[in-house]
Amino acid sequence: MTDCQEANSPMELYEKLTAQGDKVRALKTDKAEKAEVVAAVQMLLKLKVDYKQTTGQDYKAGCPPSETAAAVTDNGPAADGDGGEDNVDPWNVSTTNAKGVDYDKLIVRFGSSKVEKELVDRIEKVSGQKPHRFLRRGIFFSHRDMHQVLDAYEKHKSFYLYTGRGPSSEAMHVGHLIPFIFTKWLQDVFDIPLVIQLTDDEKYLWKDLSLEDCHRFAVENAKDIIACGFDVNKTFIFSDLDYMGASPDFYRNVVKIQKHVTFNQVKGIFGFTDSDCIGKISFPAIQAAPSFSSSFPQIFGGRKDIQCLIPCAIDQDPYFRMTRDVAPRIGYPKPALLHSTFFPALQGAQTKMSASDANTSIFLTDTPKQIKSKINKHAFSGGKDTVEEHRKYGGNADVDVSFMYLTFFLEDDEQLEKIRQDYTSGALLTGELKKILTETLQPMIAQHQERRKQVTDETVKQFMTPRPLNFNL
Amino acid sequence: MTDCQEANSPMELYEKLTAQGDKVRALKTDKAEKAEVVAAVQMLLKLKVDYKQTTGQDYKAGCPPSETAAAVTDNGPAADGDGGEDNVDPWNVSTTNAKGVDYDKLIVRFGSSKVEKELVDRIEKVSGQKPHRFLRRGIFFSHRDMHQVLDAYEKHKSFYLYTGRGPSSEAMHVGHLIPFIFTKWLQDVFDIPLVIQLTDDEKYLWKDLSLEDCHRFAVENAKDIIACGFDVNKTFIFSDLDYMGASPDFYRNVVKIQKHVTFNQVKGIFGFTDSDCIGKISFPAIQAAPSFSSSFPQIFGGRKDIQCLIPCAIDQDPYFRMTRDVAPRIGYPKPALLHSTFFPALQGAQTKMSASDANTSIFLTDTPKQIKSKINKHAFSGGKDTVEEHRKYGGNADVDVSFMYLTFFLEDDEQLEKIRQDYTSGALLTGELKKILTETLQPMIAQHQERRKQVTDETVKQFMTPRPLNFNL
Repeated sequence: MTDCQEANSPMELYEKLTAQGDKVRALKTDKAEKAEVVAAVQMLLKLKVDYKQTTGQDYKAGCPPSETAAAVTDNGPAADGDGGEDNVDPWNVSTTNAKGVDYDKLIVRFGSSKVEKELVDRIEKVSGQKPHRFLRRGIFFSHRDMHQVLDAYEKHKSFYLYTGRGPSSEAMHVGHLIPFIFTKWLQDVFDIPLVIQLTDDEKYLWKDLSLEDCHRFAVENAKDIIACGFDVNKTFIFSDLDYMGASPDFYRNVVKIQKHVTFNQVKGIFGFTDSDCIGKISFPAIQAAPSFSSSFPQIFGGRKDIQCLIPCAIDQDPYFRMTRDVAPRIGYPKPALLHSTFFPALQGAQTKMSASDANTSIFLTDTPKQIKSKINKHAFSGGKDTVEEHRKYGGNADVDVSFMYLTFFLEDDEQLEKIRQDYTSGALLTGELKKILTETLQPMIAQHQERRKQVTDETVKQFMTPRPLNFNL
Repeated sequence: MTDCQEANSPMELYEKLTAQGDKVRALKTDKAEKAEVVAAVQMLLKLKVDYKQTTGQDYKAGCPPSETAAAVTDNGPAADGDGGEDNVDPWNVSTTNAKGVDYDKLIVRFGSSKVEKELVDRIEKVSGQKPHRFLRRGIFFSHRDMHQVLDAYEKHKSFYLYTGRGPSSEAMHVGHLIPFIFTKWLQDVFDIPLVIQLTDDEKYLWKDLSLEDCHRFAVENAKDIIACGFDVNKTFIFSDLDYMGASPDFYRNVVKIQKHVTFNQVKGIFGFTDSDCIGKISFPAIQAAPSFSSSFPQIFGGRKDIQCLIPCAIDQDPYFRMTRDVAPRIGYPKPALLHSTFFPALQGAQTKMSASDANTSIFLTDTPKQIKSKINKHAFSGGKDTVEEHRKYGGNADVDVSFMYLTFFLEDDEQLEKIRQDYTSGALLTGELKKILTETLQPMIAQHQERRKQVTDETVKQFMTPRPLNFNL
């Protein structure tokens, strides 16, 4: 499904994989140079992804490809050779590493490109704006086709932004804001249209919730999204349950995509099984459709050639690998992507946060007191057990959740670097670090709550009404 | 998926089937009474259907049920014991029997009920009208829950009608009119709302056609449907590609159905495979949704308890077996059904007609000359090779296509019976029979063409606009 997929037969890939596995084992046995082992393992992982994408099956040593073997997700833990324990798909993210998921490995596995300094510099040059801290700090760390988007933009060919959210409850936490904060920045610096999809249909299909509740959550979540400061003249927010029934063009694109994706493919990409409901099986087309400008004739005047840029967390990439595979076959440009890392739970970077456990994150409805208490009680610390030891040996900022949160929300690079150095040296104590985070988040959340209060039902209705935006495209 | 499914485990069913197969073989070997063999074979067929519905797999002697075996359609040719060669599903109908499909066997296999004389008499009593010739002559031969619909109607509880068509080309033939002619009669005698679905999305998914062509065919076909005489104040005709994007309530019902049907189920019912596109896999929910009154709030004012009656050809029954299985789980009444036999091709009753071969049927655009020529050249004859032999031995009306067509279109029962007797005795020659058919069809088609000419684009638009109908429900 990726761009660079080689046209190997399943059996050729199987044989290449077997040979590469032998090579990795031999290198390890011979205690070869680390760089050589890493390169060989990366090639092994790449071949496994290709194999899975070609056959819909996981590679198993000794089992040549067959038509009938059951498939699991293409991004499940790799079986051997890489020692990885990361599991990343749109519904589950887990790792056993306290620093979080190994994102360099994900780039190799997903076949995307790293956001190098060169790209960040180029965004600065093209936009004329200082890059957002999420770019400066590698939080949006991976991309597809960003250079192409910038090439076109330099030639005065515009693009549009698409991001979204699955409204599984009324409660949103600070981590949920990451894609919206960054998308807002992109919209501001490039001055382009934005569409935001609320997948209430998806949540109904996956969760034990009623359609009415999912739709209500979508509207409530829209208020928090609007509170991020989006301009109603440049932004369209839609619930799938509403927009599907309001736009024949959107449904036409959904059907086009559904014609060009087989069950074998979604089985390989998402790990669906024969016991999954047909709604889940066909849903990926609904998340794919907003990637095409013809899904929004009211905004793009029927044009189907305007490229889409999707800022999202990396776990959503499987949907868009599929979308990029389908795009040229139905005559549409492939969407470009910018992928973010995951926002860690207070308890540590091993898991993504849970909207259903209030103690795993800071919620957008938390009071200043709750924020302080949660950080003090639950934020996993990289500090030493006693003040004496901490002063002597210093703390570990790489696994400290308070420090991680500051990398997301503290704007000043120099201040952040000083905190890192002081914490690592032991000059800054865990309690002091937590206080800095508390004092960063308290005003931020309070301001969000203030802005959300201004969002009336009428404002939500305006954002969610299909209509032209203030652009001449 | 049927109402009367017994709650047997796959292994119990497998063992019952094996025992029943042995019994049938023993009866045949012993040359037992025909009635006894037929009863045993019917039980075997019933068990095979149950087995397929429970496991998603075909029964194979010596192969106990497994999770991974590939499924084929549940209505493919039975392997042994019944000698049947009928194949009936929504996309294929074939038989090796010149009289056509064995409909009594289909009733057993599909688990529906026969339209007995008692039911026809009851429809006459409740409606106060002479039953339509399609009922008098067993053309609508099978049903589900018709007595329940009539019970409720007698207690002044109304229902509505739903039928449809897959618009695979502009050309419609006389066979395509059968469900519409009958539905029109039902609407007239019961005075109830009617919705007509044109599955242009389905045709796009199944055929090598563009979305634009499928939609255009839907609008063209709507003109022929309207020419059957439907009342615009009582009838809503819709294209899926339009209505899905115009009614959030319709999409909500589609998603509800899609949540309650698994891939295993559609595999068992429709014979889908892993290589089918996800659009086909989820489509059955779109054909199911109009069976629920809440899909049309503009007509039924949001009521979800109004029962639906679906007149259709028996090959569409798999969709509605699925629909009836899902209905109670999403809080809706099960639709009732009236099933018709197939309209035979000119070349004989072994196949359904093909819209892509102009010589397999009489098209609604044929001239009087073309009608005459097609009947004379292509209508399969049950007559003898020479006039002398025919006079002596008589013809076979059961396999004669001209006679079959007359059973569909000649209103006068006595005249039809006299034709049958004269043809069987040899008093009526094949050429004379063909002349009667020609003279029956020529004015019928000419009148249809005249009415179709009156159907303006404005009329089509009226029928296809979501709006209230003239009923107080």
